[in-house]
Amino acid sequence: MLNKTSESKVLRDPIHEYIHIEDQLIWDLLACREVQRLKRIHQLGTTYQVYHTAEHSRFSHALGVYEIVRRMVNEINGIDEILNEEDKIAVMAAALLHDIGHGPFSHIFEVISKVHHEDITQKIILEDSEVHRVLEKAQSGLSKVVASILSHTHPKAVLSQFVSSQLDADRMDYLLRDAYFTGTSYGKYDLERILRTFVVNGDKLTVKESGIHSIEDYIMARYHMYYQVYYHPVGRAVEAILIAFFKRWVDLTKSDPSITQRYPMFRFLLGKVELDPFYHLDESTCFAGFHMASVEQDPILKDLAERLLNRRLFGYVDVKNEDERNVIRQKVEKTYDSRYYFYQDEMSSRPYSPYQEDESLIYITLIDGTIKELSQVSNIVAAIVAAKPKDDKKVYFPKEIL
Amino acid sequence: MLNKTSESKVLRDPIHEYIHIEDQLIWDLLACREVQRLKRIHQLGTTYQVYHTAEHSRFSHALGVYEIVRRMVNEINGIDEILNEEDKIAVMAAALLHDIGHGPFSHIFEVISKVHHEDITQKIILEDSEVHRVLEKAQSGLSKVVASILSHTHPKAVLSQFVSSQLDADRMDYLLRDAYFTGTSYGKYDLERILRTFVVNGDKLTVKESGIHSIEDYIMARYHMYYQVYYHPVGRAVEAILIAFFKRWVDLTKSDPSITQRYPMFRFLLGKVELDPFYHLDESTCFAGFHMASVEQDPILKDLAERLLNRRLFGYVDVKNEDERNVIRQKVEKTYDSRYYFYQDEMSSRPYSPYQEDESLIYITLIDGTIKELSQVSNIVAAIVAAKPKDDKKVYFPKEIL
Amino acid sequence: MLNKTSESKVLRDPIHEYIHIEDQLIWDLLACREVQRLKRIHQLGTTYQVYHTAEHSRFSHALGVYEIVRRMVNEINGIDEILNEEDKIAVMAAALLHDIGHGPFSHIFEVISKVHHEDITQKIILEDSEVHRVLEKAQSGLSKVVASILSHTHPKAVLSQFVSSQLDADRMDYLLRDAYFTGTSYGKYDLERILRTFVVNGDKLTVKESGIHSIEDYIMARYHMYYQVYYHPVGRAVEAILIAFFKRWVDLTKSDPSITQRYPMFRFLLGKVELDPFYHLDESTCFAGFHMASVEQDPILKDLAERLLNRRLFGYVDVKNEDERNVIRQKVEKTYDSRYYFYQDEMSSRPYSPYQEDESLIYITLIDGTIKELSQVSNIVAAIVAAKPKDDKKVYFPKEIL
Amino acid sequence: MLNKTSESKVLRDPIHEYIHIEDQLIWDLLACREVQRLKRIHQLGTTYQVYHTAEHSRFSHALGVYEIVRRMVNEINGIDEILNEEDKIAVMAAALLHDIGHGPFSHIFEVISKVHHEDITQKIILEDSEVHRVLEKAQSGLSKVVASILSHTHPKAVLSQFVSSQLDADRMDYLLRDAYFTGTSYGKYDLERILRTFVVNGDKLTVKESGIHSIEDYIMARYHMYYQVYYHPVGRAVEAILIAFFKRWVDLTKSDPSITQRYPMFRFLLGKVELDPFYHLDESTCFAGFHMASVEQDPILKDLAERLLNRRLFGYVDVKNEDERNVIRQKVEKTYDSRYYFYQDEMSSRPYSPYQEDESLIYITLIDGTIKELSQVSNIVAAIVAAKPKDDKKVYFPKEIL
Repeated sequence: MLNKTSESKVLRDPIHEYIHIEDQLIWDLLACREVQRLKRIHQLGTTYQVYHTAEHSRFSHALGVYEIVRRMVNEINGIDEILNEEDKIAVMAAALLHDIGHGPFSHIFEVISKVHHEDITQKIILEDSEVHRVLEKAQSGLSKVVASILSHTHPKAVLSQFVSSQLDADRMDYLLRDAYFTGTSYGKYDLERILRTFVVNGDKLTVKESGIHSIEDYIMARYHMYYQVYYHPVGRAVEAILIAFFKRWVDLTKSDPSITQRYPMFRFLLGKVELDPFYHLDESTCFAGFHMASVEQDPILKDLAERLLNRRLFGYVDVKNEDERNVIRQKVEKTYDSRYYFYQDEMSSRPYSPYQEDESLIYITLIDGTIKELSQVSNIVAAIVAAKPKDDKKVYFPKEIL
Repeated sequence: MLNKTSESKVLRDPIHEYIHIEDQLIWDLLACREVQRLKRIHQLGTTYQVYHTAEHSRFSHALGVYEIVRRMVNEINGIDEILNEEDKIAVMAAALLHDIGHGPFSHIFEVISKVHHEDITQKIILEDSEVHRVLEKAQSGLSKVVASILSHTHPKAVLSQFVSSQLDADRMDYLLRDAYFTGTSYGKYDLERILRTFVVNGDKLTVKESGIHSIEDYIMARYHMYYQVYYHPVGRAVEAILIAFFKRWVDLTKSDPSITQRYPMFRFLLGKVELDPFYHLDESTCFAGFHMASVEQDPILKDLAERLLNRRLFGYVDVKNEDERNVIRQKVEKTYDSRYYFYQDEMSSRPYSPYQEDESLIYITLIDGTIKELSQVSNIVAAIVAAKPKDDKKVYFPKEIL
Repeated sequence: MLNKTSESKVLRDPIHEYIHIEDQLIWDLLACREVQRLKRIHQLGTTYQVYHTAEHSRFSHALGVYEIVRRMVNEINGIDEILNEEDKIAVMAAALLHDIGHGPFSHIFEVISKVHHEDITQKIILEDSEVHRVLEKAQSGLSKVVASILSHTHPKAVLSQFVSSQLDADRMDYLLRDAYFTGTSYGKYDLERILRTFVVNGDKLTVKESGIHSIEDYIMARYHMYYQVYYHPVGRAVEAILIAFFKRWVDLTKSDPSITQRYPMFRFLLGKVELDPFYHLDESTCFAGFHMASVEQDPILKDLAERLLNRRLFGYVDVKNEDERNVIRQKVEKTYDSRYYFYQDEMSSRPYSPYQEDESLIYITLIDGTIKELSQVSNIVAAIVAAKPKDDKKVYFPKEIL
Repeated sequence: MLNKTSESKVLRDPIHEYIHIEDQLIWDLLACREVQRLKRIHQLGTTYQVYHTAEHSRFSHALGVYEIVRRMVNEINGIDEILNEEDKIAVMAAALLHDIGHGPFSHIFEVISKVHHEDITQKIILEDSEVHRVLEKAQSGLSKVVASILSHTHPKAVLSQFVSSQLDADRMDYLLRDAYFTGTSYGKYDLERILRTFVVNGDKLTVKESGIHSIEDYIMARYHMYYQVYYHPVGRAVEAILIAFFKRWVDLTKSDPSITQRYPMFRFLLGKVELDPFYHLDESTCFAGFHMASVEQDPILKDLAERLLNRRLFGYVDVKNEDERNVIRQKVEKTYDSRYYFYQDEMSSRPYSPYQEDESLIYITLIDGTIKELSQVSNIVAAIVAAKPKDDKKVYFPKEIL
């Protein structure tokens, strides 16, 4: 049964002032261990090694996404034409749960384990878990509905727009939240105004023409956050060490099976997806693993663990091409095993792309009622889309080799 | 003599936390009646009829520009290579005084009187005024130095960059200040970071390559403030009435000379520049004039005055071309004298233009030490410069004609 | 008819983010000339001579008080038990109109003219005015209802609690607003939390026991604002000059009747209350009067006017008793006419007084449902009430006499 | 050698905008593992279970305290009369290091292990550690100087005032920081103004009389933070479970020595202070321990671990006396072992106490130059000191027993 809570509950939050909880289902989901686990995973992975106050968790972000969706389903002009009460509660639950499949250090874990967090999210919602039981107890079949919203397979495509599109509650919360907790001003945009200018048009969520400026501002906020925070080279330097550590650990398991026993928290990296070990996989167990490894025999694993614990970072330089890369790789190889001590990456991102699938785009309802895709009506966005993206190719390595 | 104040004085300010005054000259300039007069002129003219809290004065802004310049001459990397103590105090004085030639409702007065505020500023600084006497008493010849900075004729062109360029203390203060007092978030950008990334290169003020993002953010802040605040159609509708009122008043003086006597505050509109009446020309005397006119015989002057006092605004519509304009003009003419009750304007602005004179541009010092103009190194700025500017042509008229 | 507006309107506001207007009556009241006039009166009188950004008007504050009352009648727990729709709209109108009887420089005008602003407010609402006509057009008899809320004679005493008590929307708005516009942090308290902890108990508006801390914080905010802003000695020094100017003007009218003719804006000081001249009485006409007086023959009126225009302030010292006062008075009298150039005042205020009439007090609903007056349950508030108030006796005079 | 860094380094911080680092010693201390470890300890222990965004670390706070001290030694009026360059760098180092002896869940660990964090801090600074080596390398004997500032044994008592008194950089930072990260407004006060009103008087750090209001505001901020955040009953309920868990663990070691082997991270609880295991003791290892315990045989340890991981909290009620306590204890005992499932505490705090040792007090320099203790000159503070403190006695137990 989809009951209301006996009294409206509020949680203080610096981004939204209060998170309002009015449905018993949401309250019960919050208490599930799979959701509580998110408190032990940083929202921005290792970014707190760059911006020292970026210590907020995925749990706070999940609450924020939920709160934005709660306001959207209550406040958007015309929303009741397309959503019924069950749709609303399902999309609020989807918002709260959208990240529960994330491991610690997010895509690092995905790179090594070859497991996507979206798949784990689906598994948690659909299979044996506290979250699954709470959803099914509230309403039989609800877990499938929630999962389908997150996998873009729900018949009402608009529901996926709320939690997974280029103007979704996920991005809307994290830009503001990451700006607040890093202490930068770049991610700020006018959430109140965007919420006011959303309007349902046919089966789509669109933005009124009068709201284009706030959307342009939001797009620029994304752009700045990418380069100032999300793609910050020092953050990538920490990731280079994480990847090296996990690679080394996986490589060691091949010659020494005891490694797998002694480090149960890292077993997940070997690619087998089971929910119970996944529940025990968070940053606290990973760091406990780094502590253990920092007194390990293997000099490489030990060194990389110490680097992670004590922020002994790699240096980095920009490289234009393969030749420049090779010069540095060769320097590294004089002293180090370049499988672990040399890393390259390349970042490129557009803050908005008009070339993605239909339901991911941002739509504007013109004054005459017609719908156009954002870059068709905003000269600024069109210009940004057309601009040559920045080249950002780097290599990472122990500083002293230079 | 350029003395320091006996103790550092501070004025509380919401934008800069404190305005610091350490030079007796600045303290003495503040007390001049030409500077105090700025308290009786709104920084944003009639914008408080759109954003009701935009009630801040040109005086507060003058303090803010001064404070930013004070920090620039104290904090910019390498500044002592190009500025001596006298340059510094002169440019701080220029910052404080840069707007003293403004009439109320700024460019409206210029349009009608054909007098530019820059010329009045020069006159006040150079001729008989309290400001002039304070400058000359502090150091003989100083008034000419300060005036030359504002007229871009000082031999050190960099001094004009501080107070009059596309990245000057004037814009840097007003974006933040106007955002704060309108309650919008659009004008915010990271002033602290920009101040930190300024660097002197040769005889130019430039920004380090690592500061490009904060400059892009500042450019976008300008862009948004233009369309959300400075060019807001309701503000332009108020200006349409102001222009009509002043036109009518000038027209009436031709047939009835007593008008000129009875409204001494508006005499300035007739184009003769004298400093003493200018000192008595501020928004309080203008509004007293509107009060008088609101009980005047002439029905047009009376009606326009009441509209100004009680916010009875014109309506407006977008027009694409002359034909559309004429259709509306003809409707107006059925009931109204279209010389006063029909107004058209056209707004277009780029937040940054690389085509202006040299000292107005924004320069970046690359990592290798070379200097490039901003749009050469920022893809985003280049895209914005290349973007087709918005079309914003409107006509204004009494609402009821539609 | 009490209609809703065709669509919800919002006005951007830095304190409340948005002011929401949903009733046609409120929209129509906003357009009345008696309400628009408040844009030409500073909320904090001459405080902008102390805190240079305190330039906000009574109009903005009126909107803020309205918005808080709008939220109170919509959001307070149990409010529908005691208020019907008509009560709600009447108290929202009362909130918007509560200050329309204020002259410029508020209590200064009251001191000289012996007319209380509350009486003018009643007159405007009840007699021939745009405001009166709008109220009566919306619903016959509504003007009396609104007036009775402001004069504490409405049968439902709780309605007066909303707009006139020690925890009313008036104080709640001005503390936050004055803090924002002065740039001080002292007036900040947690409005959201107070709104959440209000609860109707019987016929009273009370605060839940769990909200005591936010009330204590609000009381301290008042305390600090008194001494840091409202009673700031420099502000009182400006008031001393205003009082002297107005006294001198009244005295001059006795010997020279032309004065009354030439300064129509000050006639109101002579004590006759008429609404039409009152409408023309605002700070713009007063300052236009100061401009005129600054070129007047009478040396005292002229000097005081110049002081007001150009911030040539009186100095001040603390005095403990009559003897100390007399010493300074005698010094003043050597050079000046002490009727105008010597002023004394004494400030004393408690941020909360449990000794006022019943409906002004702050009530707490304990967990067991009983009601207690605030100082009975808060040790901190009891301590503050019991504390000896600060002695703050000062005299003001031309600085150079010391 | 006490070198400056080659260029001034800045770290972005939401509380202080930037943390400025200009001394190589500070930069080198930051890189020490004992300092980096503070990133893995929450500043507010388990408060993030009450305010979900209170996830900031002791590391960020350490930087903030350092930054405030850095400003104090640079900006306080007259500071150069009493401090030389070596004093300054020593007290900045002391600020950065003041918390390095803290275990996770701070005083919980102290209660169980009977080891005070101050003693560990001394040990780390004075004995074999990276921090010790960095200090001694910078200047021989410096570690003793820094330690003596923190232990109040340095001959210049004023140095201890900076980092350990009732108006020290520690409190000044944590009030603002904890307010920011919890999202409450209670802890805010005007740091800039306090910094401006500090003045050296003789050998004491005092506050100018004109700054009393900002100090009163700061005292009230402390008062509110105690009751709204630091003593929040839900936070204490989490602590009740932590204490129970650790007690149980210690009790189990007595019967099963393998426990000590299997949980190396908790060995420190047994009371033996060694630095190397202490370095491995942080919240990540503790939580890894809770994960292990959550699959342990012992039902009590297992249950308490699950409660900690998944926020299954104890309930609580106020109790007035021993009798009320016993009633509840007896209810608990029907189902639970009350050694672990029943907890009582009592909170009482004054935000300022004039009865502490001399160097902890807050001193005011009156206008005539004499020094008085704060409560002698502030009626408000005197009232608060005299007010009966709140009674806050509670018991905690599994919710379902009621």
